[in-house]
Amino acid sequence: MARVYNFNAGPAVLPLEALQEAQAELIDFKGSGMSILECSHRGKEYDAVHAEAVDNFKKLLGLGDEHAVLFIAGGASLQFAMAPMNLLGSGQTADYVNSGAWALKAIKEAKTVGAVNVAADTGKEIPTRVPSAKELKLTPGAAYVHITSNETIAGAQWKTFPRTDAPLVADMSSDILSRPFDAKSFGLIYAGAQKNLGPSGIALVIVRKDLAERAPAKLPVILQYRTFIEENSLYNTPPTFSIYMMLLVSRWMLKTGPETLYKRNAEKAARIYAVIDAGGFYRGTAVKECRSDMNITFRLPSEALEEQFVKEASQQKMKGLKGHRSVGGIRASVYNAFPVEGVEALVAFMKDFEKKNG
Amino acid sequence: MARVYNFNAGPAVLPLEALQEAQAELIDFKGSGMSILECSHRGKEYDAVHAEAVDNFKKLLGLGDEHAVLFIAGGASLQFAMAPMNLLGSGQTADYVNSGAWALKAIKEAKTVGAVNVAADTGKEIPTRVPSAKELKLTPGAAYVHITSNETIAGAQWKTFPRTDAPLVADMSSDILSRPFDAKSFGLIYAGAQKNLGPSGIALVIVRKDLAERAPAKLPVILQYRTFIEENSLYNTPPTFSIYMMLLVSRWMLKTGPETLYKRNAEKAARIYAVIDAGGFYRGTAVKECRSDMNITFRLPSEALEEQFVKEASQQKMKGLKGHRSVGGIRASVYNAFPVEGVEALVAFMKDFEKKNG
Repeated sequence: MARVYNFNAGPAVLPLEALQEAQAELIDFKGSGMSILECSHRGKEYDAVHAEAVDNFKKLLGLGDEHAVLFIAGGASLQFAMAPMNLLGSGQTADYVNSGAWALKAIKEAKTVGAVNVAADTGKEIPTRVPSAKELKLTPGAAYVHITSNETIAGAQWKTFPRTDAPLVADMSSDILSRPFDAKSFGLIYAGAQKNLGPSGIALVIVRKDLAERAPAKLPVILQYRTFIEENSLYNTPPTFSIYMMLLVSRWMLKTGPETLYKRNAEKAARIYAVIDAGGFYRGTAVKECRSDMNITFRLPSEALEEQFVKEASQQKMKGLKGHRSVGGIRASVYNAFPVEGVEALVAFMKDFEKKNG
Repeated sequence: MARVYNFNAGPAVLPLEALQEAQAELIDFKGSGMSILECSHRGKEYDAVHAEAVDNFKKLLGLGDEHAVLFIAGGASLQFAMAPMNLLGSGQTADYVNSGAWALKAIKEAKTVGAVNVAADTGKEIPTRVPSAKELKLTPGAAYVHITSNETIAGAQWKTFPRTDAPLVADMSSDILSRPFDAKSFGLIYAGAQKNLGPSGIALVIVRKDLAERAPAKLPVILQYRTFIEENSLYNTPPTFSIYMMLLVSRWMLKTGPETLYKRNAEKAARIYAVIDAGGFYRGTAVKECRSDMNITFRLPSEALEEQFVKEASQQKMKGLKGHRSVGGIRASVYNAFPVEGVEALVAFMKDFEKKNG
């Protein structure tokens, strides 16, 4: 089996041992005589999966009883709507930070629900960056403050989260559980699973239970966080296989040790940024202080060279390095499950490519 | 490998060959060096999966260009909200038929969105049934008429769909593509995939494109059918693995031949109902004219016998026969992928159980 180095931004590389376990038991789950895909969501086999997945993410995020861990079908894009639908009361304003494409999507969706104040806007700046805490123009009495912890496309990341009076809400799709942070200090965190957590089509949602009570009574039941809290994400049939995959990934994280993973992530990113900074050939897309450890974005001297870079890397089994169609350039996504050897291969390739074309 | 006979109502039995194919290529999809779970939703590997899945369901449902085939994360429960959000304008009324637990959930959710007229109500009748077309008290100028083609819990099924002036909307979660029907005559069809189509956490949605234009401009983008139509269900990252599994199931359907499957389904159900009708021991839950070919519900002379029935069947590798917690009794769900041999085993067991306990 020839696994490639998969730099995709998401869906992205998963831990090989999680895939191997899923493969081994795909037709007969734990001797049940059926696939996990065929198990009832009310039966004992799936019950155990669900309960352990909730527990593992609670443990990994260091959460107590104040927050609920939810699994909601639909990715972060549905959360762009659900967050304001649940938390933004009529007559209230929500503060949003625009730091790039994903923040902007969240803002646009929130505006269909209620009043939005853009508290800072670095969305169009090149080099890309997130604002500093002191740049934020916050609304007194805001319903919440929304940030995008890591801009997957721009490659910019909040290194220190702002302290706000209003509850802090974060889209952490592309960097949740990739570094230590204080999850308990957030009002709401949501993350599409397809980067650091599992398959696409599901979001991990962490919500402070008291905030979920804000949802208007007329909101459809299936769009209320309250419903998911009360029914432990089993109000309707959840995406059982996706949660099972997230369980396998969470087990791998606990086994590897989150601190080990976090340290490894920082080192992986540092090695690539070191090549970018070594000469004038590569040019980082993001301001140094905001560089993402998950999505490393950079440009080459010309678009022709960028195209050649992607092509030659692909021939050497490094896939998915093309930057997002909206910004061009190169993007190396190196999530938790991305192996150190893949970073070593990229670093060697970058040096070689620079030597030949610089 | 000892596969059991899986009578689960959903998630439910899948075609063995679909599971085997998924298993074989779970770590290396078509020589790409990555899992289908890891492939980009914008890359050529997944593109081919997505396009073929759309085509196959269009073909299986006999649809032209008037309707769109959509994949939407979240199951039928999200569609209970999305249908009225998109199709029920302010000042309009939607007619809903209450035929049981699932119809009632759809009604409750629609009421959070707009005005609902319950056009007929057989929801609490025992034996269970769906109303006849002539019982419906429809609203002139209604936004649409909503039915539940098959009540999974009650075991009652529409055998002929009503003809209505307003667009007909159907929750077909538990019987879509299990029998011939004229999909083109519907305004909207939605179905949670976890019964006849694939894994849980995703819905197949068929919508007449002109109806999707009704959605109010202020509706969040991710909740508009329009968005999914315009972007071919790729506005955001779709549940790629789920769509891949649905592709494998659709291929199996096309290979087997839908007419063969439909005939087999009718025969499977008829064999079980024949045992129910043969003596006075078993008692069908639904009115004969409305009996579901997918979810065969029946009672035994006592709850103690029902419990014993489920237990002994389980010992003989027949799993998931316990009726839904809300109604009790026995439910044998025999979806497309449920094998004829499993029906033969159940029939033999039922006869034997009656002889011993009748």
